[in-house]
Amino acid sequence: MKPDQTDIAAAAARVAPHVRHTPVIHLNAGDLGLSYAVTLKLELLQHAGSFKPRGAFNRILRAQEAGELPPAGVIAASGGNHGAAVAYAAQALGLVAEIFVPEQTPESKRKRIEGCGARLVRTGAAYVDALAASRARQAETGAMEVHAFDHADVLAGQGTTAKEFEEDAPDLTHILVATGGGGLIGGMAAWLAGRIQLVSVEPEGCPGLHNALAAGRPVESPVGGIAADALGARQVGALMFPLAQSYIGASVLVTDAAIVAAQRTLWDRMRLIAEPGGATALAAALSGAWVPPPGARVGILVCGSNTDPALITS
Amino acid sequence: MKPDQTDIAAAAARVAPHVRHTPVIHLNAGDLGLSYAVTLKLELLQHAGSFKPRGAFNRILRAQEAGELPPAGVIAASGGNHGAAVAYAAQALGLVAEIFVPEQTPESKRKRIEGCGARLVRTGAAYVDALAASRARQAETGAMEVHAFDHADVLAGQGTTAKEFEEDAPDLTHILVATGGGGLIGGMAAWLAGRIQLVSVEPEGCPGLHNALAAGRPVESPVGGIAADALGARQVGALMFPLAQSYIGASVLVTDAAIVAAQRTLWDRMRLIAEPGGATALAAALSGAWVPPPGARVGILVCGSNTDPALITS
Repeated sequence: MKPDQTDIAAAAARVAPHVRHTPVIHLNAGDLGLSYAVTLKLELLQHAGSFKPRGAFNRILRAQEAGELPPAGVIAASGGNHGAAVAYAAQALGLVAEIFVPEQTPESKRKRIEGCGARLVRTGAAYVDALAASRARQAETGAMEVHAFDHADVLAGQGTTAKEFEEDAPDLTHILVATGGGGLIGGMAAWLAGRIQLVSVEPEGCPGLHNALAAGRPVESPVGGIAADALGARQVGALMFPLAQSYIGASVLVTDAAIVAAQRTLWDRMRLIAEPGGATALAAALSGAWVPPPGARVGILVCGSNTDPALITS
Repeated sequence: MKPDQTDIAAAAARVAPHVRHTPVIHLNAGDLGLSYAVTLKLELLQHAGSFKPRGAFNRILRAQEAGELPPAGVIAASGGNHGAAVAYAAQALGLVAEIFVPEQTPESKRKRIEGCGARLVRTGAAYVDALAASRARQAETGAMEVHAFDHADVLAGQGTTAKEFEEDAPDLTHILVATGGGGLIGGMAAWLAGRIQLVSVEPEGCPGLHNALAAGRPVESPVGGIAADALGARQVGALMFPLAQSYIGASVLVTDAAIVAAQRTLWDRMRLIAEPGGATALAAALSGAWVPPPGARVGILVCGSNTDPALITS
C-alpha cells in the first residue's frame, strides 16, 4: 500500500517532536555559479545527518502506537544513513537496535550508529548483502524490521520532506532529488502528486531508478562509485515505483566528478559539508546534466552530510 | 551618526542582490542538550563565511551611489572575516581592494581574502596594529576605508541581520549574539530598539563590551584566546556604544573550553562547521553562562564559519 497525502500529513504530526523542520535558503541567480535562482532545502542538518530519521521515526512510532513493537526492538540493514537514523530513533525511544551495514559503509556512518548505542554488524560487499544477513538475524530474534525504503510508513515519513519544502517554498515548479532505493523521492512524489515536478538524480554508478523507468519495472542495476554507500540499493522499491512512473518528470545521471565538484562548491561557497549522496542532486544543476525549462523555479534537496570533511576540504 | 530603522531598511534593500537571506532553524527542547527550545539563525552560511558582507556591501554601495568611490578602490583592516567580506564585495563590484590582517589571522581567512583577488598585507600582532598600518597606507593611496565596525553604514548593514531574524522568528524575546568590535550587535540593537532583548556574549579573553559597559565608556581591553581573530577588537566602537547601553539586556563571558564544546556540538549534532567566534553565542547557552528567564523564547545567531574543519572534527 503506497502512502497518500493523509498518511504523510499524519506522519508529519507524528514525527514533529523528533525531527527537525529543516530550513530552505534562497540563492540568487549567479550564486554557486548557476545562471538561475535556486532554493536549497538543507535537509543535511537533520538529526543523524540525513533525511532518514523521518521515515525511521514514522515506522517505529506507528508500530508503537499499534502495540506491535517486540521486546527484541528494531533491526535494519543500511548503507549507513538509514542505520544511523534507526539507531538514533531507537536511542531516543529507549529501544534496542541492531544495524547491519556492508563493508563499504564509511567510518563516519559507522561511528554514528555505534555512538547511539546500537549493535553494529558489518557484513557483505553491498547493501543487499547486509539486508540478507539482517533478515536471517531477524528470523532468530523477532525484532521488527525497519526497511530502508520499501515500506509504506517509511515512504510516508520521507514524504514529510516534500510537505515542508512545498510549505516553505510554495512557488517552486521543479525539485531535484537524489535517488537510491527511492524512499525519499517516492514519498515526496506521494505528497506532491505532480504539483511540483520531481527530477530524480542518480550517479552513473548507481542508475537504479533510471534503469527501472526504462524497463518499466524495478530491475537489478549496478552499484558503484563515490555515492554507493548512500544511493547503492541495487533495485528501487516496489512501493515507490508506480509513484515514480506517475510523478517523476525527469531522471538524470551525473558523474562522480560532478558530485565531487558539487561537494566542493557547497564547502567553498556555503561552508556546508555534504556527503556525495547529499550533493548529487545539486550536481545535476551545476554540471548541466539537468537544465531547467524557461520560467522554472527550481528547488534542490541537499539530503545528507555524513562524511569526513577532510575528504572535501583538503 | 548611529543608524536608525530607516537606514537599516534601506540597507536591506541595497544589499539584497548581493547577500543571502540566511535561514533560521527551530530546535525543540532537548535538542543540542538544551532544556529549552531555541531558534538558530544560520548566518554562517553567508557569502564569505560570516555576516560581514552585509556591512561591507552597504558601506561600499552607498559610497558608490554618492559618487564617492576613489579610483584606488577600498582598503580595510580586519581580523579576517571583515577582510574576506570586503574582498568578496570588491570582486563582485569590480573594485580594487587591499586588506590588512594581523599575524594571528588564520590561513582559512587569508585564503578567502586572496581567493577574491584582493592584495593581502599581513602585519602586526593584533587587529589594532593592522588597522594602524592600513591607515598609513590609505593616506598614500587615497583608497576608501571600509571600517570593520565603527561606521554608520557598516552598522546599518549588520543591522539587517536582526531585521531578517525578527521577520523569520517574530516571537523571540531574546537573541544571543557574539560581540567583538560591536558592529553586529550594535546594528542589531539599532534595528530592534528593545523589542527583543539582546544578550552580548564574549570570550573571557576578549571582554571589550563587558568592560565598556562596566566602565560606562569604550575602554581598551585584553585580546586573547581562541576567538581573538574574530572578536579581538581591543575596544568597541564609539557609534555602537550608546546603542549597547540602551538596548543590550545582558553581557556574559564564556570560556574557550565552552566555545570549543559548542563548535563540537554544532558538528556532532547538526553537521555545521562554525569558527570559534561563530559558536560563541551558542556557547553561552550550552555552558549555562546565560540562563533564560521563565517564558523566554530564545534566538541564537551562529555568525561565522571560517575555520579548518579538522580543528573541530579530529
